[in-house]
Amino acid sequence: MQKYSFKDDYSEGAHPEILNVLSNTNYIQTIGYGEDEFSDKARQLIKNKIQNADVDIHFVSGGTQANLLVISSILKPYQSVIAATTAHIAVHETGAIEATGHKINTVETTNGKLKPSDIQGVLNFHTDEHMVMPKLVFISNSTEIGTVYSKKELSELFTFCKKNNLYLYLDGARIASALTSESNDLNIKEVSEYTDAFYIGGTKNGALLGEAIVIKNDNLKDDFRFQMKQKGALLAKGRLIGIQFLSLFENDLYFDLAKHANQTAEKLAEGIKNKGYEFFTEPVTNQIFPIFPDKLIEKLHKKYDFYVWSHTDKMHSAVRLICSWATKEEFVDKFINDLD
Amino acid sequence: MQKYSFKDDYSEGAHPEILNVLSNTNYIQTIGYGEDEFSDKARQLIKNKIQNADVDIHFVSGGTQANLLVISSILKPYQSVIAATTAHIAVHETGAIEATGHKINTVETTNGKLKPSDIQGVLNFHTDEHMVMPKLVFISNSTEIGTVYSKKELSELFTFCKKNNLYLYLDGARIASALTSESNDLNIKEVSEYTDAFYIGGTKNGALLGEAIVIKNDNLKDDFRFQMKQKGALLAKGRLIGIQFLSLFENDLYFDLAKHANQTAEKLAEGIKNKGYEFFTEPVTNQIFPIFPDKLIEKLHKKYDFYVWSHTDKMHSAVRLICSWATKEEFVDKFINDLD
Amino acid sequence: MQKYSFKDDYSEGAHPEILNVLSNTNYIQTIGYGEDEFSDKARQLIKNKIQNADVDIHFVSGGTQANLLVISSILKPYQSVIAATTAHIAVHETGAIEATGHKINTVETTNGKLKPSDIQGVLNFHTDEHMVMPKLVFISNSTEIGTVYSKKELSELFTFCKKNNLYLYLDGARIASALTSESNDLNIKEVSEYTDAFYIGGTKNGALLGEAIVIKNDNLKDDFRFQMKQKGALLAKGRLIGIQFLSLFENDLYFDLAKHANQTAEKLAEGIKNKGYEFFTEPVTNQIFPIFPDKLIEKLHKKYDFYVWSHTDKMHSAVRLICSWATKEEFVDKFINDLD
Amino acid sequence: MQKYSFKDDYSEGAHPEILNVLSNTNYIQTIGYGEDEFSDKARQLIKNKIQNADVDIHFVSGGTQANLLVISSILKPYQSVIAATTAHIAVHETGAIEATGHKINTVETTNGKLKPSDIQGVLNFHTDEHMVMPKLVFISNSTEIGTVYSKKELSELFTFCKKNNLYLYLDGARIASALTSESNDLNIKEVSEYTDAFYIGGTKNGALLGEAIVIKNDNLKDDFRFQMKQKGALLAKGRLIGIQFLSLFENDLYFDLAKHANQTAEKLAEGIKNKGYEFFTEPVTNQIFPIFPDKLIEKLHKKYDFYVWSHTDKMHSAVRLICSWATKEEFVDKFINDLD
Repeated sequence: MQKYSFKDDYSEGAHPEILNVLSNTNYIQTIGYGEDEFSDKARQLIKNKIQNADVDIHFVSGGTQANLLVISSILKPYQSVIAATTAHIAVHETGAIEATGHKINTVETTNGKLKPSDIQGVLNFHTDEHMVMPKLVFISNSTEIGTVYSKKELSELFTFCKKNNLYLYLDGARIASALTSESNDLNIKEVSEYTDAFYIGGTKNGALLGEAIVIKNDNLKDDFRFQMKQKGALLAKGRLIGIQFLSLFENDLYFDLAKHANQTAEKLAEGIKNKGYEFFTEPVTNQIFPIFPDKLIEKLHKKYDFYVWSHTDKMHSAVRLICSWATKEEFVDKFINDLD
Repeated sequence: MQKYSFKDDYSEGAHPEILNVLSNTNYIQTIGYGEDEFSDKARQLIKNKIQNADVDIHFVSGGTQANLLVISSILKPYQSVIAATTAHIAVHETGAIEATGHKINTVETTNGKLKPSDIQGVLNFHTDEHMVMPKLVFISNSTEIGTVYSKKELSELFTFCKKNNLYLYLDGARIASALTSESNDLNIKEVSEYTDAFYIGGTKNGALLGEAIVIKNDNLKDDFRFQMKQKGALLAKGRLIGIQFLSLFENDLYFDLAKHANQTAEKLAEGIKNKGYEFFTEPVTNQIFPIFPDKLIEKLHKKYDFYVWSHTDKMHSAVRLICSWATKEEFVDKFINDLD
Repeated sequence: MQKYSFKDDYSEGAHPEILNVLSNTNYIQTIGYGEDEFSDKARQLIKNKIQNADVDIHFVSGGTQANLLVISSILKPYQSVIAATTAHIAVHETGAIEATGHKINTVETTNGKLKPSDIQGVLNFHTDEHMVMPKLVFISNSTEIGTVYSKKELSELFTFCKKNNLYLYLDGARIASALTSESNDLNIKEVSEYTDAFYIGGTKNGALLGEAIVIKNDNLKDDFRFQMKQKGALLAKGRLIGIQFLSLFENDLYFDLAKHANQTAEKLAEGIKNKGYEFFTEPVTNQIFPIFPDKLIEKLHKKYDFYVWSHTDKMHSAVRLICSWATKEEFVDKFINDLD
Repeated sequence: MQKYSFKDDYSEGAHPEILNVLSNTNYIQTIGYGEDEFSDKARQLIKNKIQNADVDIHFVSGGTQANLLVISSILKPYQSVIAATTAHIAVHETGAIEATGHKINTVETTNGKLKPSDIQGVLNFHTDEHMVMPKLVFISNSTEIGTVYSKKELSELFTFCKKNNLYLYLDGARIASALTSESNDLNIKEVSEYTDAFYIGGTKNGALLGEAIVIKNDNLKDDFRFQMKQKGALLAKGRLIGIQFLSLFENDLYFDLAKHANQTAEKLAEGIKNKGYEFFTEPVTNQIFPIFPDKLIEKLHKKYDFYVWSHTDKMHSAVRLICSWATKEEFVDKFINDLD
């Protein structure tokens, strides 16, 4: 019997509406490399959504690619990026940022979120040309441990960055889940307002692949397509991603899919709480981190796929359970039952 | 009225069989990052085809990505790659290879193909540590100007490389068209035998996106997935490419699509020849390069999209016309008629 | 009045014997790029000293250059280096290692020294291709905070590295001071035995400039001069550094200079201890880190140059005082007197 | 018997005046990293000479280092540098520029010098984001084959660059020989006027080591010391180069040394011409390229060291003979005699 997977939000293919549109448009000839009409329309829909016609939008195939492109495009050789020690770029991108030549200055956090004081500490430490020059702040929303930024937190961070001549970039691999969280008070327009650039994740929210990089700061716009081509990120059939974002943003499908992910995750979290278990971080998005006895984990692993995140004491561990646009409620129910 | 495009072989979506399989497998949960069962099966089919179970096969999203990954993976920092001046990596990849730190030693050729004597010349010139150390030979088949390597040419090149302690890597963006050309006497098993690594192009032969990198030389196999992840090439939904290669290699669809491309190109070439026009290079694959008067080009451009390749004299230019798996014969006929 | 500097060990020119030999050999014609007879002789003297004729020795102009050359030469693109958070490469080289594409995995230490358990922790955390692959351990002796490795510590570290298929590289900018410390039980032969590569620092021990990179592990020897040339490290007049190391190693001048540095530092430390002050780390080499009241520091700064290292509480700071081959005892005495 | 070397201009140590000043200043304590008073004074002398107080001047240890620093500092990742195929960066720096990520677009020339039309050709070819973006023009004066730019040539090149939004950088490894050539009509003030940045070579004109990078264009000045530190180019005892340039520029010693080199080269060229030999390029600086029968070369090699530059026909080769500040006239006479 195949196990049911709560391992990630990319275990299935794509939302069927996306496959439909790919199929319906299949024989239309278009120009390559993302300059086609579908990509243009998708960009327009996103611009409407963030209420800013002046941003530049580029479609790329994955999150690591988005991050390395944006960061290496912004920074001069001796400049660095500040990130939480839990940041995806600091841990799970195989040194992709360093491979483009840049140091990551990491800061320990309790909840995966950066505060102005964290950044101030890094700035205070870096004083002259014998050290790198911090120039960019990297955050994720939702974070790698499932937490979300409030409007106040993000706006204060942006204000701090501007005051200190830093750029702020937001990794939105799971921005849909963040913005549809019960705990959230931000909208996507504000995300754009309070960052210099960010990306809207498709891969983890129903697309086959694809992320939409949004560049608001004019300083960062020039020649981005050169960067994409050089790093192998300019797809010949760029329409493939354009069409998907067109589907996702035409009728708010993008946010509906995330709501489903959040709601199933919330149901799962409630069920786990009701059984008396605690959480590594407060469950507010589609990634939740309950703490289970290791014996229970062993048992659950026979029926379900999921990651063990970290050992919390000798006999307990936090695990990561992820729900997605495709998660079926029946398996949420089963999982809860299997906790007994 | 929209123009019909002979601009490239990636103007449409994917062969419908591919879309079907994507759709049929859509809700099956799989593990990410190319370790799924579909990708495994696709790898197995390709191994069968090249009759070598020991090669490593990795799926990536595009040709520039494949090239930069393989080349940067093979070379030490001070080593260089030898290529024709017309090579894709030397011209049309925005310095992607140099961006990974490596010089390209270019050689002028008449037909886009490298010979042992070309390489010997580069080796003779590079004698000590004040110059780069050439270590890898890059070729494309079919070449960027539509020509193909014969079995004799490829095997002699490989023998020369081995004798001189060089690696040989073949860019197979259009390998399908090459191997189904009327002029061809190679098969894909021999391509693998006479190279250290090569890639099998999907994007330009009916896939939505995707190339299959085949690594035969054991020295080059280690840790390639680290390289992929670091360069942003490891897709979360790796199955997306695996499934497509599964479709392409299950019933030789891959080669059937290329035959269609070649046959329509041949018909186009014949029609052009019959009208008395000459060619920049002998037309043998799905890329053909007729030489037209500039006035005629201007007229044709009103109905058809295609690239002007180079000016051959004051009043004539070579143009590039490409047929693909999706090219409709009626437009080939129309184009020929429009030559009058 | 000029202040007397305890800021570093490179405030003066070179030991006069070095200037003499430079002068005496000035008009002898030699071949360039470090292949001259003086450099050869210097290499021979060092090989004798470490009792190993099979090492490769290369002279470069500075410590950051040595570090970036060795590390980028050893590592494949996706491999990382493990270092203490206080390591020179992690803090004071402006991201030089990352600029060659490599992540540094840092470990917090209490005394600037790495232990096998520190490294084991990093290895445990890095499990697959989504993370970098740690491959090299970087240590400094003496460390950046003046401590030294014992023979037992270094040999255990090396054994651990070999067992785990890691390389061990030692930054010897201040190896002379380490090996002539009262606390030391290592000799330079053992330093070579218990590392894969290390460098012998000249700049901070009496040379105008220059470090001697010693590569023992055969895997790391190939083509190092290509790396040097490519990174701008191959001096046309390579003899300049060769001659200096010839002077330094001809009659153990190298160690005599370090002894002077250590003895003056020890005298300074004793004086400070006698006045009742404590130290940030135990003073055993030519770098000592006493903790003074901030008011005293302000007063001392009027007569002496030195760095404030870190604030230890609201009213006290650790300062770094360095003695060198050129430090004059009278200023040590004056400094001690000025503590009252 | 040791051969006399006409191989290069760095076979001896330094002009004795330089050694004197190094000796006289040896015990003066200074701050490190090029911020000392000697370096400041040297910078001031150079500013006076080029009559521009607003340039930034940085001292580095060698030419390859200067080139890779300036070029990688100017260019964004996808931008390239245009150079002659004979340019030092294109051939003899082991891919140092590519190692920083940048392509070199090379142009064939007859005399090692670039003209506006050469550059226009490169610009015409590079049209979109599928190719690199040429942004910097690299020239050497004197060139790698001993020729010099006239004032008209350099000013027209600079005007062309400015019109096309390109930077112009001049490698002045042998600028002293160029500016004191009989064929020259430029002075160092004009060299600065007609470039965005250039470097003044010390290593090949009497210094132990050292080049002075002069940055005139304000866009290129920021944070250059960060670049230097990151690339291992910031010497701890920066004074070592500062003091040497102080000596060289205090009483025009710099130009006097070059005059000696040129005059001995001219005498050598005259002697060779008088014996009936021709030259590969017109001999106007301290590098001359006579064409000799291979048999004669064999004979000369028994007494003299020099490079064979290229075979001009089956029985003749061009050789490179270099005179320097240290070349003794008696050996020039002997060489001429030995032609018989």
